[in-house]
Amino acid sequence: MVDIQNVFKKIGLEFDPDSGAYVHNKTNIPLTVHYEHDTETMVLLDQTKLPYEFTVWKTQDYRKAGIPGIKGMIVRGSQAIGCAAGYGMLLAANEYKNEQKENFIKKLREAADFLNETRPTASPLKWATDLCLKVAEKSISKNGKVGEAVEAVRYAADYFLAADLILSWYLRQDGKKHLEDGDVVMTHCNGGSMSSSYGGHALGMLEEAYVEGKDIIMVSKETRPRSQGYKLTVWELNRAQMPIVIVTDNMISSAFERFGVNKVLLGVDRVARDGSVANKIGSADIARVADLYGNVDFYYATSYSTIDLETKKGKDIPIEERSIDEVTYFYILEAEDKRKNKVISEKSLKEWPPKNIITNKKVPGKGEIVIYNPAFDVTPPKLIDLIITDIGVYAPHQIKTLTNEKMNQIVNKRLEKQGVKVPEIIIE
Amino acid sequence: MVDIQNVFKKIGLEFDPDSGAYVHNKTNIPLTVHYEHDTETMVLLDQTKLPYEFTVWKTQDYRKAGIPGIKGMIVRGSQAIGCAAGYGMLLAANEYKNEQKENFIKKLREAADFLNETRPTASPLKWATDLCLKVAEKSISKNGKVGEAVEAVRYAADYFLAADLILSWYLRQDGKKHLEDGDVVMTHCNGGSMSSSYGGHALGMLEEAYVEGKDIIMVSKETRPRSQGYKLTVWELNRAQMPIVIVTDNMISSAFERFGVNKVLLGVDRVARDGSVANKIGSADIARVADLYGNVDFYYATSYSTIDLETKKGKDIPIEERSIDEVTYFYILEAEDKRKNKVISEKSLKEWPPKNIITNKKVPGKGEIVIYNPAFDVTPPKLIDLIITDIGVYAPHQIKTLTNEKMNQIVNKRLEKQGVKVPEIIIE
Repeated sequence: MVDIQNVFKKIGLEFDPDSGAYVHNKTNIPLTVHYEHDTETMVLLDQTKLPYEFTVWKTQDYRKAGIPGIKGMIVRGSQAIGCAAGYGMLLAANEYKNEQKENFIKKLREAADFLNETRPTASPLKWATDLCLKVAEKSISKNGKVGEAVEAVRYAADYFLAADLILSWYLRQDGKKHLEDGDVVMTHCNGGSMSSSYGGHALGMLEEAYVEGKDIIMVSKETRPRSQGYKLTVWELNRAQMPIVIVTDNMISSAFERFGVNKVLLGVDRVARDGSVANKIGSADIARVADLYGNVDFYYATSYSTIDLETKKGKDIPIEERSIDEVTYFYILEAEDKRKNKVISEKSLKEWPPKNIITNKKVPGKGEIVIYNPAFDVTPPKLIDLIITDIGVYAPHQIKTLTNEKMNQIVNKRLEKQGVKVPEIIIE
Repeated sequence: MVDIQNVFKKIGLEFDPDSGAYVHNKTNIPLTVHYEHDTETMVLLDQTKLPYEFTVWKTQDYRKAGIPGIKGMIVRGSQAIGCAAGYGMLLAANEYKNEQKENFIKKLREAADFLNETRPTASPLKWATDLCLKVAEKSISKNGKVGEAVEAVRYAADYFLAADLILSWYLRQDGKKHLEDGDVVMTHCNGGSMSSSYGGHALGMLEEAYVEGKDIIMVSKETRPRSQGYKLTVWELNRAQMPIVIVTDNMISSAFERFGVNKVLLGVDRVARDGSVANKIGSADIARVADLYGNVDFYYATSYSTIDLETKKGKDIPIEERSIDEVTYFYILEAEDKRKNKVISEKSLKEWPPKNIITNKKVPGKGEIVIYNPAFDVTPPKLIDLIITDIGVYAPHQIKTLTNEKMNQIVNKRLEKQGVKVPEIIIE
């Protein structure tokens, strides 16, 4: 078994009865996913309500864990989604614990298929459901007892959370070596604690360095269209009481000059073999502006699971385009507000631009409007100083020296060192 | 007298009974300011209602021309404000036309003082009210008749609009020489027709080139926090039926790569003697990103009235900081919308960030948030290819070769050439 409570204790996470979440005893930032083993309940920090309301969301039904839990983005960030998917599989295993063994595996496989579909592009999701399914199958084939298979899934699900917590801890230790007293750090989107289970990626190391006494000022970019920087990052950094400057996305140069930004630290969506990094739209703009200033270090921070050695170059990374509703939402609210306050008349447009002039074409024609909403952009390796990961710190050109085998060896060694036994099925 | 109708005709502006505005017969874009001499009424395109509603706003009272007309931003953009202020003075002159000559001048001076206070930083405003006052005083001292002084003010007010229309026309002719078939042009904020009387600054030349047959695609940046790019620029470009791509402010690199942007063309707030340009926040970010791409031309377009030879360097330009309400507005609407739709509870925060953690300090302390909202940033001359003005096209290093005398000579020559007699008081 994984002693998950012991991992919480090591990290500094303590149960907070007010919110119902585990909260870090120094940074004050909550764990995004946990499982009440005594009541067989999955608990998620409800990120759809942030920053307006801090509360948890609970379920005992794997279907609800999938929808709305994962699909409705109550939990978000690929690592955290993976952890939630593991516990989703445990909910399913628990639901079918009285089935015959063949039916148990069949039902568990259906649950995995269902969960995998809720966020098809999040690779740790499939990884977690696969692991849970494989340990269950192995347990059944070994001794034929469904009850033991349920416990095997429990182990795998807890392992997934424990591994994420411990690897994030390593990321913070390595990352903090690159932070100094007096740093003014710009960030973008939410490459945060809350996109992992706890303390991951770009923000975890900053929050920890700050609560441990390093004098750091944060500059958080709004991150249109979904404003994760304005909402989630500011909420999270403020939990740790960090000094924060909020800027809109067009204030890069301005913030560099006014506040003396000397570092940029961002999360990662995918690292290609050539050291290119795909991350939230706008990251590459910051990298280019930083490059011209010359005295600003540009870092990415991430889990090794985002290193995709199969993708050779940055330009090979496919760029997801998202719904234009994300962009237009505020202007529907604005039109409504102006109508309510009689700034505009009842006859005025209900939204801008009106739907009849928006086109889905790749390039607009005469009288047409394209609203372009790519989720990511790609930063070329020459603009990146360091990629700080949970398996070590690399210059972009060093990424190509990694192999999946090497990465797994480092992961397993780090986990074993912290007392978390890696499931045999992973090592085999 | 200035034959203003003849100027409208030359430019291509025709009265549109549907909207009540003069509208260009090819670009379909309205004149922002005109005056009905037969009814003594000032007519403004109501920009507070755009893009949701296209309508004009009228007044016969100079006080209302000041508030809400100018102060409430029914008219905006320094050139257009100057034109509105001239007609505001004509409304005042008309109101006091039965007064004794001493009282007439006293009342007119009070009206000028009142109008000047409505937007204290817009220099063409004071320039227009001064001109109207001086021609009235000169007329009175010459022949003592109030009726003739009213006509002198009428002449000055019409002159101000005619001069703006004609200089914008020159700007478009010079600017169009730098536009080519196949151009993909990024713009930001609204350096548009509608910030002049008609057809000025960055957008006028693009709209005219497009309706004359040049194949041009526009990329308009949202321009947070007030979204002039998303709202006004897109509305205006769409009137001319130009193909438009809307992007948020963090999509500079992404739009360059996806749409092949080869030119950036922006309006100007102020040009310093060293060729630095202050413009809407975010302009300098685009300039820096464009510089790294190498194959993107970066142009500013403006009226000579923004060239401030007294300000030696870019860093001497003071940067106005605006109300944080501009930044937080959308998040108040969002909280309200989420509460209405029961995504968050009645107990949730009414706004983010909550007021009690926002500070007015220059730099935030522990637990504090600064919302930074500068109106402008400054682009250094080395990042600018051309400054296209209504008195000629200059490389940034040529700005220092200008003098106020030289600039006025070019202006007066251009106006006289187009049949607009410059008031003697200006030449004296």
